Amino acid sequence: MPPPGYAAGVQLDLSASAGDLTARLVDIESVSGSEGPLADAIEAALRDCGHLSVVRDGNAIVARTELGRPQRVVLAGHIDTVPVAGNLPSNLDRGLLYGCGTSDMKSGVAVQLRLAAEVTAPAVDVTYVFYDCEEVESERNGLRRLARNDPASLAADFAILLEPTGGVVEGGCQGTLRAEIRAEGERAHSARAWRGRNAIHEAAGILNVLRSYQARSPVVDGLQYREGLNAVGIMGGVAGNVIPDECFVTVNYRFAPDRSAEQAAEHVREVFGGWHVTVTDVAGGARPGLSSQAAASFVAAMGGTPRAKLGWTDVARFDSLGVPAVNYGPGDPMLAHSRGEHVAVAAVRECETRMRAWLSG
Amino acid sequence: MPPPGYAAGVQLDLSASAGDLTARLVDIESVSGSEGPLADAIEAALRDCGHLSVVRDGNAIVARTELGRPQRVVLAGHIDTVPVAGNLPSNLDRGLLYGCGTSDMKSGVAVQLRLAAEVTAPAVDVTYVFYDCEEVESERNGLRRLARNDPASLAADFAILLEPTGGVVEGGCQGTLRAEIRAEGERAHSARAWRGRNAIHEAAGILNVLRSYQARSPVVDGLQYREGLNAVGIMGGVAGNVIPDECFVTVNYRFAPDRSAEQAAEHVREVFGGWHVTVTDVAGGARPGLSSQAAASFVAAMGGTPRAKLGWTDVARFDSLGVPAVNYGPGDPMLAHSRGEHVAVAAVRECETRMRAWLSG
Repeated sequence: MPPPGYAAGVQLDLSASAGDLTARLVDIESVSGSEGPLADAIEAALRDCGHLSVVRDGNAIVARTELGRPQRVVLAGHIDTVPVAGNLPSNLDRGLLYGCGTSDMKSGVAVQLRLAAEVTAPAVDVTYVFYDCEEVESERNGLRRLARNDPASLAADFAILLEPTGGVVEGGCQGTLRAEIRAEGERAHSARAWRGRNAIHEAAGILNVLRSYQARSPVVDGLQYREGLNAVGIMGGVAGNVIPDECFVTVNYRFAPDRSAEQAAEHVREVFGGWHVTVTDVAGGARPGLSSQAAASFVAAMGGTPRAKLGWTDVARFDSLGVPAVNYGPGDPMLAHSRGEHVAVAAVRECETRMRAWLSG
Repeated sequence: MPPPGYAAGVQLDLSASAGDLTARLVDIESVSGSEGPLADAIEAALRDCGHLSVVRDGNAIVARTELGRPQRVVLAGHIDTVPVAGNLPSNLDRGLLYGCGTSDMKSGVAVQLRLAAEVTAPAVDVTYVFYDCEEVESERNGLRRLARNDPASLAADFAILLEPTGGVVEGGCQGTLRAEIRAEGERAHSARAWRGRNAIHEAAGILNVLRSYQARSPVVDGLQYREGLNAVGIMGGVAGNVIPDECFVTVNYRFAPDRSAEQAAEHVREVFGGWHVTVTDVAGGARPGLSSQAAASFVAAMGGTPRAKLGWTDVARFDSLGVPAVNYGPGDPMLAHSRGEHVAVAAVRECETRMRAWLSG
């Protein structure tokens, strides 16, 4: 018998309520790059479902029904989270479940798992996709890897990402670009600072540009987006007695889908005209795909008025594979990545109920 | 026979010229904390000198003549350097020796070693001190450790630090203080930046204070000092898609010896009144010690007009041990810690010649 917690790994009970299952998923820490134990648990639970065929690729899992239905839909979600901010383990307080990943997006993953296990005869064939490394640079993204290794596994008539949308269908998504802005100086001993030029002091210019930047809020295909340009990292310094000759500011530009990745890069270069700019990572957005027939039917079934998706999601990746896709999940997007992240258990339940009804036809 | 370069370690030939010996010392890399191989070589070379008694403490070495002279002087120098800036190995070009540590202060160490080996019967007893970790926070300073472990080994009537002074006697020294200034924000997803508050953007305020700071240039006991307040490090960021809630700027305040360490700390707290300030490291300066009899006699023998020492040196440490001390060395203080650091070989020779004549009485 293996020692407790070893080899057999952690167990998931997919017959638990969606709220309990969310808590269980949250308590299996899975910061990007460390999804192994959670992926193992998900794979094991899905392999126990006789009506699904399961394939694993790294820390991504694809489970499919093969019922020969005329249509196929994808339900997709990422299993990684941003770094924990002192907010684990999860904690249930008056119907709200607190903890890293509760909203973004283990509540969505819990709904996927509940549907995968229990809707054994859906009206359409369903592909359930669970993937890694969504919260880091796009080269590491698990869905991107799946699309390269086995694009056929993602083929479908329509895809739903269970990213947090507060139970509202969100169309399209904004693009995201990261760039490194470099301030230059000249090294000197800090006791004779006037012999050098302080690159960290120079970087104030970069930060002042960011502080006075006026972000756009354009309307695209009827939905209003809201851009942002922010420092997400800064680094400079050689030693405690040296005037530094380099300082790097990493900025993140979130851009509306009326701008291409190339136009976004050009814009950032223009904003930081006087500086050395290196674009390190860019993922284009997606225009709202709500005019497609499949999307329209899903929207009608879910009810409510669609709105613009502000965060970048893999909607854009499905869009570029030719699969219309929307975002629809129980989490609150305003709480994602915050220390106080939480989800209402009732919202998780409602998401499951609505999607179960839709899938059951 | 051991393999080449092993066990026997690197060898120093103290009969080489002061310029050649400097080059040899420079090429044995010894960034603070990694002085072991150089300390080994210095210790071995001094143990070969029959007229010296040698003691090792960590990576510090103390070598003494024991001739029963009525007076004793200390010749001290640090053997570590700031991080290498692509400027090793050393390179001799038209009488100038380039490389990390040429000026600060392996040329001074070369003079110490030449005198230690060859002035076998000085007019005063001499204590040669070689020590580690001068270029980092003061808790790691090798001279501080020696003063604590064996203060008697540093007792003397007068001390000379061979820090770079361009061959001019420099009196006193400025103090140095390091503090961490913290900007606070609130975490959020970078796609919805307006839900948080960006601590890196807030840090622009700290950098703007530094950019507009007016440094003092007070005259103390007849010598003019020049203060400075500079960022020497900055660090902030959680992940590429998170608005960060903390950003730290490390500042270095170099203060004239009319201010105590306490007054310096108070000043920095006042300048950054709106921020969280943590003083992490402070070493008080020393008022010019030139009025002592021993110092005056040395100044007369070396010639020239003394001036203020701007960089912090262990003059302050000797001062607090009750040993009058001055700075006098062949390097150029303006070049210390710069990528283009170099020393004139002729200056190293002249320093050796003057000090040899003075020691020989």
